[in-house]
Amino acid sequence: MRVARASSEVAVAEVSQLAEALSPSAVEAALARIRPHVRRTPVMSVEGAAFGSADPVSLKLELFQHTGSFKSRGAFNNLIARSVPAAGVTAASGGNHGAAVAYAAACLGHRARIFVPTVASPVKIERIRAYGAEVVVAGERYADAALLCEAHARESGALVVHPFDSPYTIAAQGSVGLEWEEDAAEGLDTVLVAAGGGGLVAGIALWFAGRVKVVAVEPRGSAALHAALAAGRPVDVEVESIAVDSLGAKRVGDLVHAIAADLVAEAVLVPDSAIVEAQRRLWESLRIAAEPGGATALAALLSGAYRPRPGERVGVLVCGGNVDLATLAALSASPT
Amino acid sequence: MRVARASSEVAVAEVSQLAEALSPSAVEAALARIRPHVRRTPVMSVEGAAFGSADPVSLKLELFQHTGSFKSRGAFNNLIARSVPAAGVTAASGGNHGAAVAYAAACLGHRARIFVPTVASPVKIERIRAYGAEVVVAGERYADAALLCEAHARESGALVVHPFDSPYTIAAQGSVGLEWEEDAAEGLDTVLVAAGGGGLVAGIALWFAGRVKVVAVEPRGSAALHAALAAGRPVDVEVESIAVDSLGAKRVGDLVHAIAADLVAEAVLVPDSAIVEAQRRLWESLRIAAEPGGATALAALLSGAYRPRPGERVGVLVCGGNVDLATLAALSASPT
Repeated sequence: MRVARASSEVAVAEVSQLAEALSPSAVEAALARIRPHVRRTPVMSVEGAAFGSADPVSLKLELFQHTGSFKSRGAFNNLIARSVPAAGVTAASGGNHGAAVAYAAACLGHRARIFVPTVASPVKIERIRAYGAEVVVAGERYADAALLCEAHARESGALVVHPFDSPYTIAAQGSVGLEWEEDAAEGLDTVLVAAGGGGLVAGIALWFAGRVKVVAVEPRGSAALHAALAAGRPVDVEVESIAVDSLGAKRVGDLVHAIAADLVAEAVLVPDSAIVEAQRRLWESLRIAAEPGGATALAALLSGAYRPRPGERVGVLVCGGNVDLATLAALSASPT
Repeated sequence: MRVARASSEVAVAEVSQLAEALSPSAVEAALARIRPHVRRTPVMSVEGAAFGSADPVSLKLELFQHTGSFKSRGAFNNLIARSVPAAGVTAASGGNHGAAVAYAAACLGHRARIFVPTVASPVKIERIRAYGAEVVVAGERYADAALLCEAHARESGALVVHPFDSPYTIAAQGSVGLEWEEDAAEGLDTVLVAAGGGGLVAGIALWFAGRVKVVAVEPRGSAALHAALAAGRPVDVEVESIAVDSLGAKRVGDLVHAIAADLVAEAVLVPDSAIVEAQRRLWESLRIAAEPGGATALAALLSGAYRPRPGERVGVLVCGGNVDLATLAALSASPT
């Protein structure tokens, strides 16, 4: 017990050191590093009526990022800021992180081996291959793929790029918040951000540092951050949701938890039906094709899981567009 | 012959009077009028490599406008600036204009009857109905539907909203150019704009008034503006193209021709294969789902129909997103 407690205290001390190193200026530094390689995605103000709000909503359209999600930011920051060995880089990913690491590696001339759980959508697996990476499809969930990835790194010396619990990843994902703040002409009181492993919401919370209220949104069936905040530490959860291929982390990391406990104002839950309705609404009202994880933040407005007060300037992050078009077509055609 | 010439001279005099009334300030006035009802669509700078250019390209993403195309701008301007009788409004349209008039009428509390040629896509026809308009599907091409629309207007007194050859329509479509100029941080040397009936490209040329080079892009198989500029007057053309449901006008109007002859620098033609490739590229590289007409301007870069000089700051307008998702899914899945 003593040993366990001591080890836990050490871990807590390390985490809080890391969290201190992570500051808004770390986000600025990350953006300066990755800017030549990533797109500045647009911010668009839309009337609230179609999107579950009485007031206009600011959308940050990060689904138009390279590889179709914000994950490219973290991937580039890891590969530029860290020293990449000849064995290249490796990652375990439900799909979007894998595509981003594969893409960044190809752009920067590194080898990449990506471990993908079998739950990942075929369209995402195919894209990772198309970016030139070696793909290993194995393990039912992210955690299983992560073990295989770690083993490969130990054997080969390849650099592991963590999908969320790395200061390089978190600081870079925070640059979404930096751009959003600069580009939202009307200002922002609150931003809604989907959470899986939590790197994106932690990075954005780090950037806003309490100046803007950051709300994490998770599917009811895949709520690792909500569980961690309730327990006061990262805990394992079961994951079962339409958004599991991008938000299916079983457990948030220590660093994500430390930042989120301090800087994420609320963590709300949405049912899968609201995620589907958000996808449908984005297509019908806006011609935006979002994947389930990309539409999850909007689901908080549509379902009432987050209810803005009158006049509140709310932002919704649309963070991923790697949807299978045939699936989206079927969904749009089905009755509301 | 004398009579014909006299009548033609009168028409030319009227057209040039109208063209004089249309000025950049008419575009500003139109935007002031419609601003509460339309979205300010985003401008995004993308790396040129994936889009047929050595330099970054400025995309104006007008497909995210209400009803999925720029047509809402012209519809609102007509319905606000003109007096609408109790019989309401009527329009003939390959689809997008009809949806826009139906939507604007519903927003402003007017009745609408829309005449749609049989060539229109089912998804567009369904949307027009969903906006609450009465839809009459009849006639093979736009010109046939237009005759039925005129007859209805004579009988009922309904106000005809012309899809392109009205000063109200042209001035409002020009507001796309106004916003683009304000939002393109790096500036614009040239903009590529798809043309069907030509109201959009005429309006944008009117706004830029030679300060920015305006290039009209038409499908090879549906090139009414190109033919008019070559002949020195509007002439009938055959239309057969994948983009015919939005760019299928058989003849540009007199007003469009007068403005374009003066202010459109070039009219280039693209094959349907380049339009399909542009749709595929927008989806694969950017997760943007454009309809054929919406991807036609980009096709000019991909096909080399327009070749920018080094360093030229080129803008590409993505003007419509009313694509059938299942069709786009099939197209993306097919080999490049």
